[in-house]
Amino acid sequence: MPDDFERMWSDLAPVGRSATSGGYFRQPFTAPERELADWFREQARARGLALDSDATGNLVAWWDPDGGIVPDVLAVDPPDSVSQRQGLSRTGGVLTGSHLDSVLDGGAYDGPLGVVSALAAVDELRERGVVPARPIGVSVFVEEEGSRFGLACLGSRLASGAIEWEKARGLRDRDGVAFEEVVEGGGPGLLDGVEMFVELHVEQGRDLVDRGAAVGVASEIWPHGRYRFDFRGEANHAGTTRMEDRVDPMLTYAMTALAANKQARLAGERATFGRVEVTPNGTNAVPSQVLAWLDARCSSEAALGELVETVTRQATERAERDGTAVEVTAESVSDAVTFDPALAARIAADHESGDWPVIPTAAGHDAGILAAQGIPTAMLFVRNPTGVSHSPAETASIPDCLAGVHALAETLERLAT
Amino acid sequence: MPDDFERMWSDLAPVGRSATSGGYFRQPFTAPERELADWFREQARARGLALDSDATGNLVAWWDPDGGIVPDVLAVDPPDSVSQRQGLSRTGGVLTGSHLDSVLDGGAYDGPLGVVSALAAVDELRERGVVPARPIGVSVFVEEEGSRFGLACLGSRLASGAIEWEKARGLRDRDGVAFEEVVEGGGPGLLDGVEMFVELHVEQGRDLVDRGAAVGVASEIWPHGRYRFDFRGEANHAGTTRMEDRVDPMLTYAMTALAANKQARLAGERATFGRVEVTPNGTNAVPSQVLAWLDARCSSEAALGELVETVTRQATERAERDGTAVEVTAESVSDAVTFDPALAARIAADHESGDWPVIPTAAGHDAGILAAQGIPTAMLFVRNPTGVSHSPAETASIPDCLAGVHALAETLERLAT
Repeated sequence: MPDDFERMWSDLAPVGRSATSGGYFRQPFTAPERELADWFREQARARGLALDSDATGNLVAWWDPDGGIVPDVLAVDPPDSVSQRQGLSRTGGVLTGSHLDSVLDGGAYDGPLGVVSALAAVDELRERGVVPARPIGVSVFVEEEGSRFGLACLGSRLASGAIEWEKARGLRDRDGVAFEEVVEGGGPGLLDGVEMFVELHVEQGRDLVDRGAAVGVASEIWPHGRYRFDFRGEANHAGTTRMEDRVDPMLTYAMTALAANKQARLAGERATFGRVEVTPNGTNAVPSQVLAWLDARCSSEAALGELVETVTRQATERAERDGTAVEVTAESVSDAVTFDPALAARIAADHESGDWPVIPTAAGHDAGILAAQGIPTAMLFVRNPTGVSHSPAETASIPDCLAGVHALAETLERLAT
Repeated sequence: MPDDFERMWSDLAPVGRSATSGGYFRQPFTAPERELADWFREQARARGLALDSDATGNLVAWWDPDGGIVPDVLAVDPPDSVSQRQGLSRTGGVLTGSHLDSVLDGGAYDGPLGVVSALAAVDELRERGVVPARPIGVSVFVEEEGSRFGLACLGSRLASGAIEWEKARGLRDRDGVAFEEVVEGGGPGLLDGVEMFVELHVEQGRDLVDRGAAVGVASEIWPHGRYRFDFRGEANHAGTTRMEDRVDPMLTYAMTALAANKQARLAGERATFGRVEVTPNGTNAVPSQVLAWLDARCSSEAALGELVETVTRQATERAERDGTAVEVTAESVSDAVTFDPALAARIAADHESGDWPVIPTAAGHDAGILAAQGIPTAMLFVRNPTGVSHSPAETASIPDCLAGVHALAETLERLAT
């Protein structure tokens, strides 16, 4: 494989990796994720790309042939000023990129594949002597997974104006640290002049495996939401309290987790309780509280509403039996996103290998945020043999990853020249 | 109430208390619990009691009229040597006391009531001019709750020889810290010469409420055990993974928690899942692992074995359906303890108010460990109006606490003179 491509993956491989699971722990604004951000800055400098950043930590490295930057000269020892130069015109810019944070114990590709492929696609276009008519930007958005502050795509939401700083600043992580304590601020501005966004991502399912295709184009993202279920009971001694005297929120939670699974299974949708926090979480104490988060995704907004309503009703009915209380808070709800069909068709059509498949996904992405904010957006997926993601088992073959780089380079050439 | 009694409770009230819940967080070998140990040493010095300690941190303050210590002289400014004097004869000693650690978010009385009442009972006997024929010791055993290293009564187990140091040293807390890292060592020796043990404890149920009695005597402790259930599945993306493709250990756990509750309810026994640890515990990830601890207590050892076997079988059957795996490890199992009936009768009989009630309990205590090791042992319970324990709602009235002090003083007088 090309030298730079291999070197980039070698750089990334050890950062934030668990020696026991082989998975990645790249929580936003912690050492491993900050190391990746520094790595990206270095990649931009080495390529003579002009680096824009915002107060949230989102980064865009611009290849702007009209900006007067001659990559070959600057690649050796770029002056510091280059990496922070501002004020270049991004008008008509085509943006591509993804994120570098991970879920807890996540895979190697979710996020980094889009960033590495974007840089490699720029390298490929340059090697082929392509001079784009529009500036091409490589973006890294922070906190895409929402694994720290609970709101997925927080960086791209702020950059695109999908959420206001006043609403985001007070979000807290599990240790009680506020978002505003780890970033300087946030708001739109970074994406001014961006006319299109293309995100390449590892597929998080087996659709491309079934279709026998290395690369596909996204049609839509299912609506999805995160709901916090707060089950309240009464702490008590696990030995001396008779079963009939208990007010045990663990029981209400357990029934709710099973009910959510059953509802989603019957309806062909998705419902997951993957995060639970018990208070006091002692072996010999009936809990006073169980907090649990429902991740729900459905093929339509109506179906999502119905699923959450049904699960909430079943939880409430069980709470009445248990003497407990349950309160449900929607922490984030994202409507369905349909990617620009004309753009998807333009990307997918007329390849040597025939048209690329156009497929839906149930996973949220920064691309969904930008699309919802009115920026024409497309996504490319790269085949994932296991179909598994958010796990160390997530994978993609090197030939497929290289096919993804070529596909992205070809796409950028179509859109930016 | 007597000055010293009030002052002791005032000293203890703020230590390790949560401002939000009002509950106590006195984890073994952390600052609040160490502060309480220092407080106890100070109480012993102020009373001229000779302090024995062992490498595990267990403490016994001896009132030994034959040991040549004149309390009134030493109370003002006891020399340091007194607090560490060793080699006094404890032969025929009567020990009383309890523990100062708490569960996470526990009550004020579970443990401290027995320690404060023991010191106050010594004060009362001295005020009444009683000179015991046997030394009287006030004990504080560490890690009674097992809330840090997972094994209840760890301090008294080591002191009484119920567990060997080689088996205990490697126990680890939730942060991976080994027991041997926080203590100097452990083993028997501290209880040499102890002939009897009496532990006063707040009742952790409503038996004395129902009987209209302030004080009762224990007949037996139900057998009980702690079992770690390790549910294993496959981490995956919560959005993109179809329900039918999942291997989700949360479902196996949820069914098991409900099954354990149902079994215990039907059989009139106790089963609790109060502690759960999920990996990776992310909202948008199907978990790879759910660890959960079953606390089970039954009226007989056969019933306990049957309960745990049934729950394990149901968990295993559900795991087969879910494609998950479950492994059950008994972390600690305590056989039934019957307290010395003659001793209980001697304590309970012939009071002005009539006989004190003799009642069983499903809660484990250091008294159960010492009894199982062959030391004649008794317990006094003080009425708890809510019946709730291991919770900030645990309570006892001041008149009942004072009745407990008098009852303990009377008991010590019967046993030690």
